Amino acid sequence: MDPERLRELLAAVQGGQVSPGAALERLRRLPFEDLGFARLDTHRALRGGAPEAVYCPGKTPEQVVEILARLGQSHANVLATRAGAEVHAAALAAGLRVAWHPTARLLVANPVPVEGVGLVVVVSAGTSDLPVAEEAAVTAEVRGNRVERVYDAGVAGLHRLLAQHPLLLEANAIVVVAGMEGALASVVGGLVDRPVIAVPTSVGYGVSAGGWAALLTMLATCVPGVAVVNIDNGLGAGYLADRINKLAAKIR
Amino acid sequence: MDPERLRELLAAVQGGQVSPGAALERLRRLPFEDLGFARLDTHRALRGGAPEAVYCPGKTPEQVVEILARLGQSHANVLATRAGAEVHAAALAAGLRVAWHPTARLLVANPVPVEGVGLVVVVSAGTSDLPVAEEAAVTAEVRGNRVERVYDAGVAGLHRLLAQHPLLLEANAIVVVAGMEGALASVVGGLVDRPVIAVPTSVGYGVSAGGWAALLTMLATCVPGVAVVNIDNGLGAGYLADRINKLAAKIR
Amino acid sequence: MDPERLRELLAAVQGGQVSPGAALERLRRLPFEDLGFARLDTHRALRGGAPEAVYCPGKTPEQVVEILARLGQSHANVLATRAGAEVHAAALAAGLRVAWHPTARLLVANPVPVEGVGLVVVVSAGTSDLPVAEEAAVTAEVRGNRVERVYDAGVAGLHRLLAQHPLLLEANAIVVVAGMEGALASVVGGLVDRPVIAVPTSVGYGVSAGGWAALLTMLATCVPGVAVVNIDNGLGAGYLADRINKLAAKIR
Amino acid sequence: MDPERLRELLAAVQGGQVSPGAALERLRRLPFEDLGFARLDTHRALRGGAPEAVYCPGKTPEQVVEILARLGQSHANVLATRAGAEVHAAALAAGLRVAWHPTARLLVANPVPVEGVGLVVVVSAGTSDLPVAEEAAVTAEVRGNRVERVYDAGVAGLHRLLAQHPLLLEANAIVVVAGMEGALASVVGGLVDRPVIAVPTSVGYGVSAGGWAALLTMLATCVPGVAVVNIDNGLGAGYLADRINKLAAKIR
Amino acid sequence: MDPERLRELLAAVQGGQVSPGAALERLRRLPFEDLGFARLDTHRALRGGAPEAVYCPGKTPEQVVEILARLGQSHANVLATRAGAEVHAAALAAGLRVAWHPTARLLVANPVPVEGVGLVVVVSAGTSDLPVAEEAAVTAEVRGNRVERVYDAGVAGLHRLLAQHPLLLEANAIVVVAGMEGALASVVGGLVDRPVIAVPTSVGYGVSAGGWAALLTMLATCVPGVAVVNIDNGLGAGYLADRINKLAAKIR
Amino acid sequence: MDPERLRELLAAVQGGQVSPGAALERLRRLPFEDLGFARLDTHRALRGGAPEAVYCPGKTPEQVVEILARLGQSHANVLATRAGAEVHAAALAAGLRVAWHPTARLLVANPVPVEGVGLVVVVSAGTSDLPVAEEAAVTAEVRGNRVERVYDAGVAGLHRLLAQHPLLLEANAIVVVAGMEGALASVVGGLVDRPVIAVPTSVGYGVSAGGWAALLTMLATCVPGVAVVNIDNGLGAGYLADRINKLAAKIR
Amino acid sequence: MDPERLRELLAAVQGGQVSPGAALERLRRLPFEDLGFARLDTHRALRGGAPEAVYCPGKTPEQVVEILARLGQSHANVLATRAGAEVHAAALAAGLRVAWHPTARLLVANPVPVEGVGLVVVVSAGTSDLPVAEEAAVTAEVRGNRVERVYDAGVAGLHRLLAQHPLLLEANAIVVVAGMEGALASVVGGLVDRPVIAVPTSVGYGVSAGGWAALLTMLATCVPGVAVVNIDNGLGAGYLADRINKLAAKIR
Amino acid sequence: MDPERLRELLAAVQGGQVSPGAALERLRRLPFEDLGFARLDTHRALRGGAPEAVYCPGKTPEQVVEILARLGQSHANVLATRAGAEVHAAALAAGLRVAWHPTARLLVANPVPVEGVGLVVVVSAGTSDLPVAEEAAVTAEVRGNRVERVYDAGVAGLHRLLAQHPLLLEANAIVVVAGMEGALASVVGGLVDRPVIAVPTSVGYGVSAGGWAALLTMLATCVPGVAVVNIDNGLGAGYLADRINKLAAKIR
Repeated sequence: MDPERLRELLAAVQGGQVSPGAALERLRRLPFEDLGFARLDTHRALRGGAPEAVYCPGKTPEQVVEILARLGQSHANVLATRAGAEVHAAALAAGLRVAWHPTARLLVANPVPVEGVGLVVVVSAGTSDLPVAEEAAVTAEVRGNRVERVYDAGVAGLHRLLAQHPLLLEANAIVVVAGMEGALASVVGGLVDRPVIAVPTSVGYGVSAGGWAALLTMLATCVPGVAVVNIDNGLGAGYLADRINKLAAKIR
Repeated sequence: MDPERLRELLAAVQGGQVSPGAALERLRRLPFEDLGFARLDTHRALRGGAPEAVYCPGKTPEQVVEILARLGQSHANVLATRAGAEVHAAALAAGLRVAWHPTARLLVANPVPVEGVGLVVVVSAGTSDLPVAEEAAVTAEVRGNRVERVYDAGVAGLHRLLAQHPLLLEANAIVVVAGMEGALASVVGGLVDRPVIAVPTSVGYGVSAGGWAALLTMLATCVPGVAVVNIDNGLGAGYLADRINKLAAKIR
Repeated sequence: MDPERLRELLAAVQGGQVSPGAALERLRRLPFEDLGFARLDTHRALRGGAPEAVYCPGKTPEQVVEILARLGQSHANVLATRAGAEVHAAALAAGLRVAWHPTARLLVANPVPVEGVGLVVVVSAGTSDLPVAEEAAVTAEVRGNRVERVYDAGVAGLHRLLAQHPLLLEANAIVVVAGMEGALASVVGGLVDRPVIAVPTSVGYGVSAGGWAALLTMLATCVPGVAVVNIDNGLGAGYLADRINKLAAKIR
Repeated sequence: MDPERLRELLAAVQGGQVSPGAALERLRRLPFEDLGFARLDTHRALRGGAPEAVYCPGKTPEQVVEILARLGQSHANVLATRAGAEVHAAALAAGLRVAWHPTARLLVANPVPVEGVGLVVVVSAGTSDLPVAEEAAVTAEVRGNRVERVYDAGVAGLHRLLAQHPLLLEANAIVVVAGMEGALASVVGGLVDRPVIAVPTSVGYGVSAGGWAALLTMLATCVPGVAVVNIDNGLGAGYLADRINKLAAKIR
Repeated sequence: MDPERLRELLAAVQGGQVSPGAALERLRRLPFEDLGFARLDTHRALRGGAPEAVYCPGKTPEQVVEILARLGQSHANVLATRAGAEVHAAALAAGLRVAWHPTARLLVANPVPVEGVGLVVVVSAGTSDLPVAEEAAVTAEVRGNRVERVYDAGVAGLHRLLAQHPLLLEANAIVVVAGMEGALASVVGGLVDRPVIAVPTSVGYGVSAGGWAALLTMLATCVPGVAVVNIDNGLGAGYLADRINKLAAKIR
Repeated sequence: MDPERLRELLAAVQGGQVSPGAALERLRRLPFEDLGFARLDTHRALRGGAPEAVYCPGKTPEQVVEILARLGQSHANVLATRAGAEVHAAALAAGLRVAWHPTARLLVANPVPVEGVGLVVVVSAGTSDLPVAEEAAVTAEVRGNRVERVYDAGVAGLHRLLAQHPLLLEANAIVVVAGMEGALASVVGGLVDRPVIAVPTSVGYGVSAGGWAALLTMLATCVPGVAVVNIDNGLGAGYLADRINKLAAKIR
Repeated sequence: MDPERLRELLAAVQGGQVSPGAALERLRRLPFEDLGFARLDTHRALRGGAPEAVYCPGKTPEQVVEILARLGQSHANVLATRAGAEVHAAALAAGLRVAWHPTARLLVANPVPVEGVGLVVVVSAGTSDLPVAEEAAVTAEVRGNRVERVYDAGVAGLHRLLAQHPLLLEANAIVVVAGMEGALASVVGGLVDRPVIAVPTSVGYGVSAGGWAALLTMLATCVPGVAVVNIDNGLGAGYLADRINKLAAKIR
Repeated sequence: MDPERLRELLAAVQGGQVSPGAALERLRRLPFEDLGFARLDTHRALRGGAPEAVYCPGKTPEQVVEILARLGQSHANVLATRAGAEVHAAALAAGLRVAWHPTARLLVANPVPVEGVGLVVVVSAGTSDLPVAEEAAVTAEVRGNRVERVYDAGVAGLHRLLAQHPLLLEANAIVVVAGMEGALASVVGGLVDRPVIAVPTSVGYGVSAGGWAALLTMLATCVPGVAVVNIDNGLGAGYLADRINKLAAKIR
């Protein structure tokens, strides 16, 4: 409830149109409406809609489809993450309009084309990091960001990365996805003055298994301008890149 | 060496003002200068200068002073981090012009006032988190960002945070500094659609000792738009906030 | 053996009805009976019965059924935890009278309705936390506590939690079930002056995998009045809530 | 602001004694006051006051004294934890009225005698666990609970514990403080049907160093009715025991 | 080669029956034979034979059978550990004479009855610990020790343990097998003055998963006379109990 | 209370010399006395006395001296562990009769010479392991075991160990003390058929710091007959060696 | 671009054959070409070809085959690691010329016999370590090194290792592969003055599970001349042995 | 005892000059002498002497000096590691001839100039890594290797590293010393085909504290030809580089 509407309510009480008891009922929920208002504002600012993403593991395909159907009624581009073929099939069988990105393991319900603004660059080290990199890239695209991919540009192929230096310098946000030892985030961070979002992946074996070595490397970097999200959290990196790029592109 | 100056050099060779041998000497260092060029560009864009910060632990005050003196000749606002009173005293004794921020443990050599652009908000949970929060805030200020502080706004004092909701929504980047259980980053991330940089601090005892509990909490957050830097890394958070805010403020 | 029966035995020895040798045999086992007596007292105080719960993993359905059959002869509302459909089927096939709670993965043998006293509130963060939350809720219900559920009230949906503030303030014990970053326990603990039992869940991936991030967060909380049980231990939280609620409701 | 006072305000607006503008100013802060109201309620119920405890490490004695002085103006029995002799001396030098409990490392500012209700029993394993046990015990006492101590009752001295069995069975809450292997919590939990709050301590060496072995043991217990707080967190255990005991004693 | 046989060889050289060259060949392998001698001695002292045990995981049933067949030619009671039904079937199909202990997951090739000397007691906490407890018990039996089992005697059923106090006091070695929080080893160690070998098991969930909580508890015990083997290492506990019991029974 | 005395009491009741009420009072404490009886028996069997050892860290020298004085009245050879020069000085100043072993950091109060029976061999890897090795050795000696030391026999000096092979084969228990990588326990265990008690030490840096690498190595050993105690726990190893050696020497 | 070619380019600019603009374009890519040059040099030095190895997990057999086909066009002896039967079958079905080493799980595409120079010795502790040991051995062989295998030479069978002492002393590089407690690397390192590359394996259970105990042991070794690669990284050990052996054999 | 001397001994027995008994005594110690022989051979091969290094922490300066004096009698260039000024002073006071390298914290007793052969390059990331880098460099120099240093060449100053590319390609062994995130080892490994020995350092804070992040990064590297030693183990890296370089330089 914004101040203007509150002033009107109080005036209505003063003028006798609203009884103190009715106003009391209205005001009782004020704290929560106020919080809700903030959320409404968030929602409005995001335009084309940004409902919660649906995390599929631990839900049946039917449950995912039901949630998507409900969210899709009022929102465009609803994301279901870690969505496999069986979720896709269930969505189609239920008559939902969806776009499926199998590598990214993303299912987009009620998909609506959005023009991409600004520039987000997603860099990945190896082919095994693709699912996470694509989760970040498609998330950013679906939310209306222009996305360029620089894949397979690990430390072993540093020249491929250097060849894309101009692109990196143009980006408003760079997502770096890497497993194994995760050194790529430091290298990219040292080449640019742009915000770098590092995503460790669980790819690897031995000390790399589960992504902990990459996570620690990325947190430990002494290169400025790098921050880290959870292991395999391509979605989170895409969301954060979206926030930064929209600000820089003056959409927000 | 930027393209323009390279073109001039080549023209000078063509015109005979510079011999191939002299040009060769000049170009021999090109790869490194070229990499440095990216860094030079960074430097230029940042205005008032952004040389490497000097990490004091493990160096004698004399060594720190010597490095600051050298860097301060060509750069304004050179930062020395984790700088205590003895480093400050040594700098004064050596005749350096410095500004010391004791809470932030930052020593700024060759300090030059910079107008703050955009808005970076630094939120901290408790008074023990102040040194890290101030390291982030002063770093951002010194690099030319407008900084607002919302301190002592931990989960226990949530209302203090909520009272600053409008300020949070106006920020281009929010730095959240918290030790203990680090839940504050999730709470802030849930209230805004702005980039949130979470800094776990080593404040606490038992499972909180060293900052690991806060670090894991922040990485594990399911609230979108949050990324994390190393424990106690106020400097890194300040740098990243600077990068984001400058982009949003169209300085970069 | 309670003091009264011991006095009788001694009187019988004095009166010659029991020989010293027979009394010796009887008393030889006294220490264990005495310990057992404490347990008996526990049992009596709990009314409707509180035998050990049967942990199903690592046992065949047949073994579980056999144990339940034996315990069910002398006890009502015997709990088998982590009980899947095959255990349920085996119990039915064996002619046992059981109530199965599939979400809670609880099988109640020899179920007897118990009136719920006092108030235990179970709060959960996300839908994936439901099995653990239900294990806590059903455990408390079966043991005779009134239970109210506030589900899907994670940090992202804080307003749903705040809307239940009066209910929380009325509870004698609040069980908070959360995976991922587990910040919900701190938030709830900050809103009430009631005992909060936090249950981390193994829901999540990356640093959240296995529930360790949530566990550390909950232990590290600086909000007073919160204690923690093992990851996924809904049963333990339900038991402890039962103990506290019964005391407050003056049943115990 | 409680509903009654809000109704009065609205009536005053209706009656014209208060203008809408003045009411608006008053209501603008409502959300925070409303949250504060919950806290006020807490405060009232607790009688003699329960402000935040002051955690001394990382603060100068002067800072601690200043905070205590301010809090002590409106609250009785303000706690400063981990308070050593130098904090005590500084408080005395500043003319504060304090009670110091050196073993518990607690300094109570503006101390006011409170009658102890109900019963909290604090059990500790070894003499090295005393500081943490005393922190729990004094915290509970200061907050108005009757406290009995059963110290030095580790697994090696099980008979001392068994000798206090009746006392344990009478308690509304039992705090068990143990380092090393922390088995005591399981043993106590097996003897009673009362809520047990386990506090691991950092006492020990090798695998016990830092308290992790005790923490894991206590969390892993298969004995029902036990929950755990952070390592060395006597304050938290005392607070939770207070909450439970007050409910059982019908003070709350 | 024992001293006696070496003396004979040298005498044969002196007497000319053996040439220096032939003796040289014989002595060239002396260091290894000498080390083997120690092992031979071990073998002899153990009577009925103690070859290496065969660890089945990672080997095909055929490979296990082949190794057993070879070892079984010169040794009685050859052990294969973690042996499932398919290994048993393969052994029978290959015509091997074997005894299979399915709970202990032990397959004994070339089984020969051995009289049990002295006394080893194996105590276990819960039914899920049975496989490890039986591995220890059968190992000790097969190697010729009298073994008594005290199962299902966890902290919750302390009276069952106390009822076996005389048996415990008679043992030359006590193996305590426990998962979850592993407190049983401390309790047993506090009741006896006999060597206690603690075996943590991987039974449990949350912090107990994998057996680490039990392992740390057992290592951290402040009760004297307890040592620990690897998680789930029933074989190792059985071997060590055999060594101690044989010494005490003066077999060795 | 042993059976004989209980029979007498019952006969006295039967004979009327003792009233049932008086007997009741006597029997009420039976469970604890009975447990104590076991401990008494332990004590008696050990002859020369085996009171609890006093762990000095966390106690003032005065506290240690007071405890030693009390224990020393009824016991010989009371051990204080991790006792430095200041504890020794305090004991002398208080007029206690003590023997101090500075390398072992052991103070023996009321020292009485005990003849050493059987054989315990203590092997250590490096000179930095001496304090722990000596703690084990002196503990065993003080409790009446013959002890031989084989020091500085790490993997690098394997020949020194092999030279003592006959001594190792004669031992009833072998304590192996090693830090760094702790491989020595495996090597010794492979050379003998005697019980081996492995003690990891906290000597080392990097991955060895704190003793964890040595601990894991020792637990992971595939050599039979080895069990492990806590890091730096020379006392525990000495106690266990005492138990085993006494059994083998038929003292117990 | 080497200095000579740069001098020519500048001379051509001076002489007017090349315009400054064309030279600028050429120089713009200099840094990357220079890095590429280094890589080319590396490649040339290795002779018989050393393309990147293909890590199969996470790729479909078809993807692996496609990559191998492409790499195999220009390279001999292309390695695919962790390659199972289905990858082998897919390669054959696609008409690739391959050699499959099932134990080593290596598939060599476009295999060409290479004469083995120098000497690399691969030592392994147990039969379960074979896959990793073979991965190291075959990798080294395929890259043109003479390889000798000393398998099943764990601490328990030390004499088998000692029997190969002369072979070890002749090696230019020794790869030691061991799981469980990993003590073998220390033992081998103590016997030779040759470079030892230690490979921990994930073989084992309890504290050995995943290979961490072996990893820490190997890193903690106090024996000089030992370095460690990732758990199960036979490929990396084979590569490093190749580098060292080639240097020693003066091939490089 | 080499074969020739053994043949002579047997011939002397055959010829009657030596009795079988005397020969038996001589042969009894053969196994150890034989092992010692191997060590002697090692020693001989190393020329200028390579006694064990003395690890100073945990020893008094006097103890270190005494050991150095003894070792220095028969060896040149005896190393004492982690040797501070007080050890140096004690050595001088005792009249020892020593060379002290304060940055490397190495004290060389009985120093003798050795010509450096081949080439070892030591690369370090930052100035805080200097002590470890110097420990490696001086160790290698003292043992007779030519050493070149490339310091302060971290990821942030990649151009400094690239400028030394030719030097790296000439090296027989490269030691890379880095703390923080340790990415430098991957970068160097990707630039050369030479053996790379990575040394993580304990420099850093937060997740870098203690060197674990750097350790994991280095182990996880997917760049071939890299192996890792313990955190801060400059000595071990220097020793291994010495072994490799000597082989390549054909000294060994």
